[in-house]
Amino acid sequence: MKALIFDVFGTLVDWRNSIADQAQQLLAPQGYDTDWLAFADAWRNEYQPAMERVRSGNRSFCKLDVLHRENLDIVLSRLGWHSVNQATCDKLTLAWHSLEAWPDVNQALHRLRQKYIVAPCSNGHIALMVNLARHNHWHWDAITGAEIARDYKPQSIVYQTSAEVLGCHWEETIMVAAHSSDLTAAKQSGLQTAFIARPDEYGPGLGESKATTPVDFEALDLAHLADLLEC
Amino acid sequence: MKALIFDVFGTLVDWRNSIADQAQQLLAPQGYDTDWLAFADAWRNEYQPAMERVRSGNRSFCKLDVLHRENLDIVLSRLGWHSVNQATCDKLTLAWHSLEAWPDVNQALHRLRQKYIVAPCSNGHIALMVNLARHNHWHWDAITGAEIARDYKPQSIVYQTSAEVLGCHWEETIMVAAHSSDLTAAKQSGLQTAFIARPDEYGPGLGESKATTPVDFEALDLAHLADLLEC
Repeated sequence: MKALIFDVFGTLVDWRNSIADQAQQLLAPQGYDTDWLAFADAWRNEYQPAMERVRSGNRSFCKLDVLHRENLDIVLSRLGWHSVNQATCDKLTLAWHSLEAWPDVNQALHRLRQKYIVAPCSNGHIALMVNLARHNHWHWDAITGAEIARDYKPQSIVYQTSAEVLGCHWEETIMVAAHSSDLTAAKQSGLQTAFIARPDEYGPGLGESKATTPVDFEALDLAHLADLLEC
Repeated sequence: MKALIFDVFGTLVDWRNSIADQAQQLLAPQGYDTDWLAFADAWRNEYQPAMERVRSGNRSFCKLDVLHRENLDIVLSRLGWHSVNQATCDKLTLAWHSLEAWPDVNQALHRLRQKYIVAPCSNGHIALMVNLARHNHWHWDAITGAEIARDYKPQSIVYQTSAEVLGCHWEETIMVAAHSSDLTAAKQSGLQTAFIARPDEYGPGLGESKATTPVDFEALDLAHLADLLEC
């Protein structure tokens, strides 16, 4: 193996608590109130349907900021919050650029990079990944993923292009994710796979604690993966 | 300004001495002898004509490794060195992945990154840039440049796509290079520009010591640019 490529939302960062916190910080002072974790879940629930329109060819590729912004309008509309202004919506969309890492991530990423080329393979675009990395003090070797391939995971072209631009054959590349569906697609695309347990991603006990698909490595967290790979 | 994007060959690394050294180390033990700096110059001289076939649309985009490898065959053929084997040629092509930085680069890049997003905007492909960065201990925020745009500088699309994927408007992005031709094209593409003097790039006194085109910043080396940008 030469390279590790990483899912980011859920695997490296706790998007749910981060989005809930930032939404509350921005909207509560403007007089809005709701269950902010449910707000984060509702926003995230629009993620797959929006990407599916691109994957199916019904819409040309666009950066994830565009989809996040449109999905926010859907969520606000459902809440009846029609008076949230554009500037607030734009600012809230950028909350996805400053999500907090799970506590095991930073040190483990550093260990893994000593031995492997490391890059995100996310549906987030390059600028979003740059900002997340700067926010969390990560050192990526490159930014791969959806924007490089101009399609969204789990399309094979995203995994395969990400490996190729790093100068690696597919079988020399490990896709690391907390989602079995992502890893199923990566394996079908010819990559190796590593599962990271994130049992609380969607709330306490509401995440994947075990892979439901065959994987090459299965880890309790990123530090455990670094142990398994002898980094 | 939000981002700095950098030319690499000549601006950040001393390709000439690095290639001469590595060619000598690889070929001399096999009984070949020549003026190794002239060998490096000859190889580099085939660089622009090879890219021009892509820029002109006569050839589809390919990674720089492919052009370097073909250009090496031209150089070896001219020397009458027809017996150099494929494995040696492939290994020598990878010499471009481990060029040495000019002495001012590493510390200055670190300073610049504290204030700006930094990325290479080179005609070298992503894997080559990843390997050069690991070799020289650089921390890029992302790898931009030719492979992202699937064309070669000085085509405008390379500068403009590099700025865009970093989430920056063209005028918020500074192209940093030791070559006036690169900076002329970057400015025409809407970017700001910074010239770095590399008076010895092609041999002692055989490099650009002053910009021959209007630029926004003109620096004696990368540390001087960090001073000018108050990093």
